[in-house]
Amino acid sequence: MTERLIVIGGDAAGMSAAAAARRRDPELQIVAIERGAHTSYSACGIPYLVGGLFDDLDRLVSRSPEEFRQTGIDVRTRCEVTAIDLERRTVTVRDLDQQSDGEEGFDQLVYATGAVAVAPPVPGADACEPVRTLHQAERFRARLERAGSHHAVVIGASYVGLEMAEAMVLRGLDVVLVERSTQVMSTLDAEMAAHVQEAAEGVGIRVMLSTALEEVRHDSEGRARSVLTSEGELPADHVVLATGVKPATDLAEAAGLEVGPSGALRVDDRQRCPGVDGVFAAGDCVESRHRILERPVNVQLGTHANKQGRIAGVNATGGDIAFPGVIGTAVSKICHYEVARTGISECEATDAGIDVVSVTVKDRTRAGYYPGSGPIWVKLVAEPVTGRLLGGQIVGVEGAAKRIDVLAVAVWAGVRVGELELFDLSYAPPFSGVYDPLLVAARQTAKAVREAGP
Amino acid sequence: MTERLIVIGGDAAGMSAAAAARRRDPELQIVAIERGAHTSYSACGIPYLVGGLFDDLDRLVSRSPEEFRQTGIDVRTRCEVTAIDLERRTVTVRDLDQQSDGEEGFDQLVYATGAVAVAPPVPGADACEPVRTLHQAERFRARLERAGSHHAVVIGASYVGLEMAEAMVLRGLDVVLVERSTQVMSTLDAEMAAHVQEAAEGVGIRVMLSTALEEVRHDSEGRARSVLTSEGELPADHVVLATGVKPATDLAEAAGLEVGPSGALRVDDRQRCPGVDGVFAAGDCVESRHRILERPVNVQLGTHANKQGRIAGVNATGGDIAFPGVIGTAVSKICHYEVARTGISECEATDAGIDVVSVTVKDRTRAGYYPGSGPIWVKLVAEPVTGRLLGGQIVGVEGAAKRIDVLAVAVWAGVRVGELELFDLSYAPPFSGVYDPLLVAARQTAKAVREAGP
Repeated sequence: MTERLIVIGGDAAGMSAAAAARRRDPELQIVAIERGAHTSYSACGIPYLVGGLFDDLDRLVSRSPEEFRQTGIDVRTRCEVTAIDLERRTVTVRDLDQQSDGEEGFDQLVYATGAVAVAPPVPGADACEPVRTLHQAERFRARLERAGSHHAVVIGASYVGLEMAEAMVLRGLDVVLVERSTQVMSTLDAEMAAHVQEAAEGVGIRVMLSTALEEVRHDSEGRARSVLTSEGELPADHVVLATGVKPATDLAEAAGLEVGPSGALRVDDRQRCPGVDGVFAAGDCVESRHRILERPVNVQLGTHANKQGRIAGVNATGGDIAFPGVIGTAVSKICHYEVARTGISECEATDAGIDVVSVTVKDRTRAGYYPGSGPIWVKLVAEPVTGRLLGGQIVGVEGAAKRIDVLAVAVWAGVRVGELELFDLSYAPPFSGVYDPLLVAARQTAKAVREAGP
Repeated sequence: MTERLIVIGGDAAGMSAAAAARRRDPELQIVAIERGAHTSYSACGIPYLVGGLFDDLDRLVSRSPEEFRQTGIDVRTRCEVTAIDLERRTVTVRDLDQQSDGEEGFDQLVYATGAVAVAPPVPGADACEPVRTLHQAERFRARLERAGSHHAVVIGASYVGLEMAEAMVLRGLDVVLVERSTQVMSTLDAEMAAHVQEAAEGVGIRVMLSTALEEVRHDSEGRARSVLTSEGELPADHVVLATGVKPATDLAEAAGLEVGPSGALRVDDRQRCPGVDGVFAAGDCVESRHRILERPVNVQLGTHANKQGRIAGVNATGGDIAFPGVIGTAVSKICHYEVARTGISECEATDAGIDVVSVTVKDRTRAGYYPGSGPIWVKLVAEPVTGRLLGGQIVGVEGAAKRIDVLAVAVWAGVRVGELELFDLSYAPPFSGVYDPLLVAARQTAKAVREAGP
């Protein structure tokens, strides 16, 4: 008899799983259940849509439900799984438009529900609509165009908060970015984050650090009016909460699936939920092994969601691929700077009790005489004595950030900074000085490792 | 008694050696002898100067003779070493302005004479002045501005030939690029080189392949007038010969230093000339070990010259650093494409009798909806069975080329394409699709390796 795979969640992880399963098994029944109206869309692209870098919302959809259906995947949008029965191997599905419930049996299950926004626990915060789905983005964009709206406040200076702040500056709004901690972008060390803050301020964003959100005030029609913070009240026609998301595990937990120490679903390296045969999970809702920290972490990025989804789909259909883990690579464009990181930061090392040597260099992205040359800062974090590269951070103008992948491969492969400094990296005046900034940083770090001694 | 280091050649390798020696030993007598008027200039930047991307010739000088003199290095410009006596440990130095000869003793010697242009053996070719030094570049630029000059012919479609052709297009000239072989850029495989040719033609360069130079014709005042090729005569107010350079080894050979199979000076991994104590060589005149081909090669690039020079300077002053070899990394910007390569090409593998699996993918540099997204081609070359990455080539729009360093580290570290496809590389819409083109290429190559079987 034909087997049946049910996929819960129709975004990156879920649809990667469905597509991979389909490629491997043309006969398999595949049902993908998605709460929203879209499949496989790029949430990462929303700030650029909001900022007006492009206008057509559909360009964020990499494959539509109809395209998936043409490959024989039964995509059910506007449907929500409300319960999973692992004993009977069924899910309860609510049709959100018809308001009817049904039951669907499965042989294999891929759980890929993603993450949900967490509103800060202050009055009025939960009345702010998140900007995570395409529908929410569309509505948000329409609100921005409302006559007489001038002031926007973003709460949380994560990369998403910064991207949204920049997008609203591009829309001509006055933007204040409110951050509780003492720096923007907590994934960077403070001195690197300071350059990002400078870039944000350079385009006119007012950055308020060490400032707590106390209340979001709305008018009688539910429109945002102001934000009350520990540093006073700010006018706010628009409020964006970028205060974090949490893995959407409720449904899985109710079914008895296990949550790990990171707060996300526990999976093994085959994306299998431990102890339950034929049940897989992938994407923002699961935890992944951090190869440097050597512990499970929950990283919400499309790159992992796609890979893990594909692996779940392959393994659910009798294949055998392992997800090798993550090393915390991330990249973003914030105003005129590109920002990237991989491995562990100095701050993460301290928190984890790992002793490190770290060095920051300032250099230029291109040969000094070549047009467009500008500053780049590279920070490397290495293991004492061995000099093994454990992490890197990069901030700089155009051309800076993608260099992070060079460091990512070096971190992954266990390269020592003393080796890296003599690696045969490319050089031509449009792309770097004769010593690439990464080589300069590796050399300085190797020197610091030697000087620190054994 | 204070020791004395003589450095022959005042460009990248020589002055890196002098500077490194000075940093390690403040007492050492250091004499650097340079035939030209400049030290440490960026020959790689000459096409951009010619093209008018910047105007000030001095910007190509990274450190002037005067700056080196301030660190106590006795820089003698416009002086040429005409003989080396390894027995007596002396060099004969001719002062080119005074036309006088003198003798200088040394304890340690660094030989860093670089390379010299090779004119093709056809009538009139040796009357074309090369464009390799700053003075030559300055004269060439002045000639371009001469009234009534419209036609330029570049002989040789290497990266230098292409860069010079583009530079003259930027100056408003009609440019024909004549290449003897069947493709441009012989360092790339033919199908990758075809994209580069398309880019060159896109800016109006006429590319003539399989065309031999037969004669360069000059008028009675010595100005270029036309170029005679196997495909006919071409009008030519300017002729650039980019037909290759050879290591400047004559002086060394006359002194008894050994030349290796690549035609360049043989050195060990400490940059020592074998069999002669205290004599080092570095830069374009030496051969380096190719880590993939496992044989000596002569690669003329500033990046190696700088590293080898520094290593020679360190080792000449009692230090001990090894040059780890090269893997053939190179990058260039040709018209609207960036072009890069590392490791071995499919063609090189064939020539060397190495069996490989290779795959080319076409992708986009950024998310499709993000402004500036454009084509990128990635070709990977891997070892059968193991899938170890042996080389990569990249052609594409802005943002494409520096990805070569990711592959360079992977090649260097012996990463397999099946591992690489799941590496944690960065993703954000301004920088790539959710799967970076390198991951897409790695995945396709891993598949091809599996399909090829053991």
